[in-house]
Amino acid sequence: MDSIELRKKIRNGEFNGTTSGAAGEKVQANIVILPKAYAFDFLLYAMRNKKAVPVIEVIEDGITESRFARESDIRTDVPEYNVYKDGELVDTVADITGYWQADFVTFLIGCSFTFEQAILDAGIDIKHISEGKNVAMYKTNVATVPAGVFSGGLVVSMRPFKDKDVKTVRDVTAQFPEMHGAPVHAGDEIELGILDITSPAYGEAIDIEADETPVFWACGVTPQNAALNARPSVMITHSPGHMFVTDIDNKDYRETQNN
Amino acid sequence: MDSIELRKKIRNGEFNGTTSGAAGEKVQANIVILPKAYAFDFLLYAMRNKKAVPVIEVIEDGITESRFARESDIRTDVPEYNVYKDGELVDTVADITGYWQADFVTFLIGCSFTFEQAILDAGIDIKHISEGKNVAMYKTNVATVPAGVFSGGLVVSMRPFKDKDVKTVRDVTAQFPEMHGAPVHAGDEIELGILDITSPAYGEAIDIEADETPVFWACGVTPQNAALNARPSVMITHSPGHMFVTDIDNKDYRETQNN
Repeated sequence: MDSIELRKKIRNGEFNGTTSGAAGEKVQANIVILPKAYAFDFLLYAMRNKKAVPVIEVIEDGITESRFARESDIRTDVPEYNVYKDGELVDTVADITGYWQADFVTFLIGCSFTFEQAILDAGIDIKHISEGKNVAMYKTNVATVPAGVFSGGLVVSMRPFKDKDVKTVRDVTAQFPEMHGAPVHAGDEIELGILDITSPAYGEAIDIEADETPVFWACGVTPQNAALNARPSVMITHSPGHMFVTDIDNKDYRETQNN
Repeated sequence: MDSIELRKKIRNGEFNGTTSGAAGEKVQANIVILPKAYAFDFLLYAMRNKKAVPVIEVIEDGITESRFARESDIRTDVPEYNVYKDGELVDTVADITGYWQADFVTFLIGCSFTFEQAILDAGIDIKHISEGKNVAMYKTNVATVPAGVFSGGLVVSMRPFKDKDVKTVRDVTAQFPEMHGAPVHAGDEIELGILDITSPAYGEAIDIEADETPVFWACGVTPQNAALNARPSVMITHSPGHMFVTDIDNKDYRETQNN
């Protein structure tokens, strides 16, 4: 579906599901919305933890249209939002117009959907997708670099691949530095402080066969966690899997970033 | 000279000259100091204009020591500072302790000294250095992407190279994306809106021979100009050529950034 058309359907309530695979080759983004008082600290946290928090755009206070999405409105164009107050989830809604504040700043953060498409395009299967599951995510003992009120551990996503495919997967994903990029680790999960790989902190567990290696990427849940640790007066995010769809092609974005 | 030793001499007033060549292979940085009220807009401006404003570190309000420079003090360790109020230069000093405010945020910005060293290491002469001149800098008709109160035209530095060396120069400098990186243009200056290449806006003119091509890089004067356009209540920068010397090796920094 055309991205402008899709955002229109989302806005009108005709589309309210997860956006995985819904917009072909378009870049989809995690979103974090915070009052401007937190914006400098959050942007600095992102800069210091690029792999986990790859900010691809910021919509400044006073603006609701993304430069990456024509005729968009960030208050209505995400299928489902989570609203947090003082670090607690207080509402899940399809429209945040009622919660909107003039000082809200929106961060669009690169998402693994982009590099997953590139892996599939390389002819390599991604197990949780073919099994219709949510990706497995884990807390690690790797600290992020703090900035102002934001701090916390790195959260990783894990995808198992055939041992022979690991190098290709690494090379393909390294081409998308703004979409979490190359894996942070491949192999023994103990090195990340993950004690039980069958019990992910978020998402769903997935089997790892004898000829497979678990491969770990910095995950977009990291900044949400850091933001919740900071207990901001108010914070709004997309709900998992319900992303903001831009008009930018994944491939164009890669090329732009390499120039 | 050892970078810690050099900063100590600067702090004690025993060294007050330009830092070009004074610290071997260490990364030197442009600095911009602003009250925190401007910090989000400035960091966003930097993010949107990475080639001209490659922020390599931010020293947050309440802190005066850089993580990249052991036992440093940003209030005393730059040989010469310019102090601006409401966009006007009001003082040039060797110590800004008297001007320091608790809400000051310091931005360290990558500097061309790093890639110039890499060009020299590749065995290619840099004309303004061998002639003992300051590099030629020009205003262009290329607009930067605004953010909040910050906006303005791209400023470029120009170095002429033998036509046969241009490709090598491009490849060498592209390895330092956080130090202005690859050139923004090589050849006809009219494409950047530069009408008279013999009259740079800053620095000194340099002759371009018949077998030479002018090569242009995004320049660290760009953010200073944007900041002055914004007329902040107070802003402090290094004075030209008088940089902040870190403990990081140029080569290590390149490798870090590529990981």
